[in-house]
Amino acid sequence: MGRLTARRDVVRLTEGGSTTRRDTLAVEEPLEIRAAGRQFAVTMRTPGDDIELTQGFLLTEGLIGSREDIRTIRYCDGVDDEGRNTYNVLDVDFAADVDLDAPSLQRNLYVSSSCGVCGKASLDAVRSTSRYATADADLTISAALLCAMPPKLRAAQRIFESTGGLHAAGLFTPDGELLAIREDVGRHNAVDKVIGWALEQGRVPLRRTVLLVSGRASFELVQKAVMAGIPVLAAVSAPSSLAADLAEDSHVTLVGFLRGAEMNIYTHAGRVVRP
Amino acid sequence: MGRLTARRDVVRLTEGGSTTRRDTLAVEEPLEIRAAGRQFAVTMRTPGDDIELTQGFLLTEGLIGSREDIRTIRYCDGVDDEGRNTYNVLDVDFAADVDLDAPSLQRNLYVSSSCGVCGKASLDAVRSTSRYATADADLTISAALLCAMPPKLRAAQRIFESTGGLHAAGLFTPDGELLAIREDVGRHNAVDKVIGWALEQGRVPLRRTVLLVSGRASFELVQKAVMAGIPVLAAVSAPSSLAADLAEDSHVTLVGFLRGAEMNIYTHAGRVVRP
Repeated sequence: MGRLTARRDVVRLTEGGSTTRRDTLAVEEPLEIRAAGRQFAVTMRTPGDDIELTQGFLLTEGLIGSREDIRTIRYCDGVDDEGRNTYNVLDVDFAADVDLDAPSLQRNLYVSSSCGVCGKASLDAVRSTSRYATADADLTISAALLCAMPPKLRAAQRIFESTGGLHAAGLFTPDGELLAIREDVGRHNAVDKVIGWALEQGRVPLRRTVLLVSGRASFELVQKAVMAGIPVLAAVSAPSSLAADLAEDSHVTLVGFLRGAEMNIYTHAGRVVRP
Repeated sequence: MGRLTARRDVVRLTEGGSTTRRDTLAVEEPLEIRAAGRQFAVTMRTPGDDIELTQGFLLTEGLIGSREDIRTIRYCDGVDDEGRNTYNVLDVDFAADVDLDAPSLQRNLYVSSSCGVCGKASLDAVRSTSRYATADADLTISAALLCAMPPKLRAAQRIFESTGGLHAAGLFTPDGELLAIREDVGRHNAVDKVIGWALEQGRVPLRRTVLLVSGRASFELVQKAVMAGIPVLAAVSAPSSLAADLAEDSHVTLVGFLRGAEMNIYTHAGRVVRP
């Protein structure tokens, strides 16, 4: 539980020769999420912040809209072969009015099952599922403050330096204050963790915030931003075509290649201002 | 179909000012895979090599063991709102003896549904599912040839340079010859594509090959290597703890941080030799 890194012997080969040393790896373990005893999702994740991860996942999958939709989340008390709790199974008890038979319980809910499945179908499905239209039409953010965010995220990353193996997601105010940062072997998990944190704090929908991710921006990450009402998604690397399409349609400002004093703004560039 | 990149206007912000220009993005679209008309998987992928992707996916999920287990794979002929085939739905016709009700049809099959779900349970499930025990106990590969592989992969990447947004997977001989390279917005898709290519070529199980991936090595990637019988998995970045555990148990040599003349060897280091 909360075991973020593991130690392991590794053979290091350089031009100078070969040495064996202890090395630190990012931990990856399955997390099973159950609703009233029934499995509905398994994700490979880095342990720690599992409750936040689960809350964020339930929100971005459209199953819940607020903290009140969940009564309790607790670790299942079963044990493994050796009699230890693995802390890898969470059971969620939902409020009475949450519809567990909603289509959103199924993964990939946003893809229609018609023959014409296409990017457009995905965009339409997300748009109809999100409870929070992205607002903040009047929001502006200074380009300089945006550029200062990746170094802040990097400085706050506890695990990356030791393993090189974790994605990070950070939630910032428009003034550049880092509200929360979470890390995970899966970038979608890191995003679900910060969104789950925000849900816990009563901050959802996440008006007037910037979500920064350490890697690339896929359709799935924009989808999560839209589901949480986040108006600005910034990535250190490249976005995909469908990520930009969804951001455009959903009034999300999508920034990519945010490095040093430079960036690409793919959609709704009006929110980013220069002095 | 085969549309790997898309063009889009982007606002480029630098210290010098702001300009609008056309930029190239990696295309991401959903692919739905159907078995006899029934949906069983949707993946967000970069179009192109869809048949290979599907074949590789079916193999690494344990549903098929050889090319002969598939009779045909064809694009569904349905159309989208505007009457165009999206080329985003494939229908697979399996040979008569393929068991479509096998548990492996379900995603995440490798995670047990007991309360004790843990890394160990995942390892056991993969071990029992793979049809090809990793052999090649006598295989040796020169460290210098390994180090030469990432530059070869990079040189062969058609799309990365233009978009910065695609993962690559390459299959090499122990002599350093690049057999196949595939790219995708999802690294698991890039791996499934090269494995699907190999299946088409009658090369599975992939004895005496090295699978190189451009990013990190997760549990899922090692799992795919194991399912295809690949003895060496090399990654440019870090592996996770469970990736190393599975590689150890499955007799796969796992190399990470393969950069310049250096690398870390996490498991079965005996296969990598220096002159």
